[in-house]
Amino acid sequence: MAVVVSFLSDFGYKDEFVGVVHGVIASLAPEATVIDVGHGTPRGDVRSAALALTRAIQYLPEGVCLAVVDPGVGTDRKAIAAETAWGFLVGPDNGLLSPATAMVGGASRVVSIEEQEAMIPSPGETFHGRDVFAPAAALLAAGGGLDDLGPTMAPEDVTPLILPLAEVDGAAVKGEAWWVDRFGNVQTNITPDDLAGLGLAPGMSASVKIGGDALDVKEALEVKWVTSYAGVAVGETLMHVDSAGMMALAVRCGDAAADHNLADGAVIAIGGSVM
Amino acid sequence: MAVVVSFLSDFGYKDEFVGVVHGVIASLAPEATVIDVGHGTPRGDVRSAALALTRAIQYLPEGVCLAVVDPGVGTDRKAIAAETAWGFLVGPDNGLLSPATAMVGGASRVVSIEEQEAMIPSPGETFHGRDVFAPAAALLAAGGGLDDLGPTMAPEDVTPLILPLAEVDGAAVKGEAWWVDRFGNVQTNITPDDLAGLGLAPGMSASVKIGGDALDVKEALEVKWVTSYAGVAVGETLMHVDSAGMMALAVRCGDAAADHNLADGAVIAIGGSVM
Amino acid sequence: MAVVVSFLSDFGYKDEFVGVVHGVIASLAPEATVIDVGHGTPRGDVRSAALALTRAIQYLPEGVCLAVVDPGVGTDRKAIAAETAWGFLVGPDNGLLSPATAMVGGASRVVSIEEQEAMIPSPGETFHGRDVFAPAAALLAAGGGLDDLGPTMAPEDVTPLILPLAEVDGAAVKGEAWWVDRFGNVQTNITPDDLAGLGLAPGMSASVKIGGDALDVKEALEVKWVTSYAGVAVGETLMHVDSAGMMALAVRCGDAAADHNLADGAVIAIGGSVM
Repeated sequence: MAVVVSFLSDFGYKDEFVGVVHGVIASLAPEATVIDVGHGTPRGDVRSAALALTRAIQYLPEGVCLAVVDPGVGTDRKAIAAETAWGFLVGPDNGLLSPATAMVGGASRVVSIEEQEAMIPSPGETFHGRDVFAPAAALLAAGGGLDDLGPTMAPEDVTPLILPLAEVDGAAVKGEAWWVDRFGNVQTNITPDDLAGLGLAPGMSASVKIGGDALDVKEALEVKWVTSYAGVAVGETLMHVDSAGMMALAVRCGDAAADHNLADGAVIAIGGSVM
Repeated sequence: MAVVVSFLSDFGYKDEFVGVVHGVIASLAPEATVIDVGHGTPRGDVRSAALALTRAIQYLPEGVCLAVVDPGVGTDRKAIAAETAWGFLVGPDNGLLSPATAMVGGASRVVSIEEQEAMIPSPGETFHGRDVFAPAAALLAAGGGLDDLGPTMAPEDVTPLILPLAEVDGAAVKGEAWWVDRFGNVQTNITPDDLAGLGLAPGMSASVKIGGDALDVKEALEVKWVTSYAGVAVGETLMHVDSAGMMALAVRCGDAAADHNLADGAVIAIGGSVM
Repeated sequence: MAVVVSFLSDFGYKDEFVGVVHGVIASLAPEATVIDVGHGTPRGDVRSAALALTRAIQYLPEGVCLAVVDPGVGTDRKAIAAETAWGFLVGPDNGLLSPATAMVGGASRVVSIEEQEAMIPSPGETFHGRDVFAPAAALLAAGGGLDDLGPTMAPEDVTPLILPLAEVDGAAVKGEAWWVDRFGNVQTNITPDDLAGLGLAPGMSASVKIGGDALDVKEALEVKWVTSYAGVAVGETLMHVDSAGMMALAVRCGDAAADHNLADGAVIAIGGSVM
């Protein structure tokens, strides 16, 4: 059966970058099919893309994952390919692949892509998506293995992605926004278990405090923890367990990010009276 | 031959929503292929998406149509699947599928998707595209039938979409804008037959009045009914039968929506002197 | 093996245009696969799309290329299909296909698409992507030939695209910006050979002057010619040979277009003291 290459990048939709990568894969691995996980990540935003990939990977067919958000292209950052129980992940060694790799159980082996024969010769050093990563993904999709790409790396040499953990602080949990989606829903890094630890449960309301860069509270409100949008009135702010299992703020039929001026990284605390 | 799933949503291109739905379909129905009808519908705009689907469906290969514009997710709105001569349509029961279903001759049967076994278990109740609609579409694409999804609904229980009809009002036809495309072309709900009923024909000019919310005329102009853009000078406003068979306003090599400040729902009257 | 149709347009992502073209191809050539080269070209910008196609085509699998940027739709501009060593190119006769055709060695034959049987009947004259170009591309993908589409055109009757050449002007080369990508990188029409002719080489710095519409210098700066982004500090402007082999301005981890207020067509001169 055809191998699927799932492809995520920050290439956007204005230029031909995405199409060229598809062309390279179709040329080198004609039997593979490609799923576009998405290409709208803010340019160079490794964390945002890494989180998207982590949410997505369990829903993608096992095979090859190609991810390119690569602000360090043209520096000495490595290009890597990882083997996991899910399949292969290919991309720059900047932390982009790390959370998704962990999500599928970790890598049994990671190589540094260095084999010139596995690359496309290029006049410039700026489009590794086309010249390095797509050929490597195609090679793996066509039945090749990590040995064809380059030497094995020591696990400790692979760049991790440091993701902030939510912290219990007295009677509150302090975390941050780490995804604002098209609908203005705001995913936090706070889990339902974090809130359960404070004695909160679905159906209860809690104080939500929204900070600026740190402890500077910009807004405080009472928000009900509901199990579906219907648990509050239209236009009302709610919190719920979102489709990835994290606590999220939303406004029924509205835009929580706009209403509360929230962006990636905004400090959010949920709990009683602290902060 | 592989079944095609044609997929339309308001998921946009910023997040991984579209890719995850592709992943679910590829996992559950590996032989199916997916056509993206488009995902740029304004968020929650059921009417806009329903009209797009209606214009598109006759050009899509028979098979499965998956449409998700779902502002009522997390309420008690039903999830439905309809069987038609064209194939299956799957989506929320909010009117989204109704005009396209009518366009292909109506549904012989509609079921309410309720079988838990046909869904993907999820921590949250907000991504039915992934957890309910995509699995149902995949099941149908893989050869399953409506019986696998849930109980049959009475036709009168399926939510219709109320689309405004153009009205003859004296010597004019009063309608509205219901699609402004990327190029600024403005499709109305007025048909060439409506204009023929007023004695208008291609080659003739007519008065076009553009309202605000209702009868408040913002602009009145003389517009020529042409059969191609070349029938007027560059920069001139024209009206013509568009690619979906409706009367539309356009500006040759220009942007009619911008020139005349037109958006979805703007009142437009074409005719002699009335309005 | 399945024929690939590579598809580029200015249809954007808001409407269903792209999906409808996919539907037509899937209906008429079910065995073909479609690669979206991109649909984000500014509307009606033939030059921008022609350059994108020219950069992309060598990376696309041989087969059929369908390109639709067609501000002259509904006028008497012809629809054409060209046969080349790479495969077939289909699109409007407005210069869009010319540079890519040249890039793959030129056309052995060009026909004017006129056969009504190869088209889809339509109420309107505005969506030739759906009604004329997609059916022609599908016909070629399904094994048809140019004879099925229409009469051969004399080479001199095919519309060329006039691309400005960079000019040596004393000790400088004067060119222009012809691509600003999502990352703010600015490709010029100046080649490394042009600069070598002035005695410049990688590692050297040169004066870069940025004009407005012509000779009106808006900004002058010293820029280093590097072989990778790492050759300058973060935030610094550099020039380099880009992934298409042209001289380009970039800012390491930044946006050269924003920093220097550059858009398509901006005059750029590189060299010693002239301009």
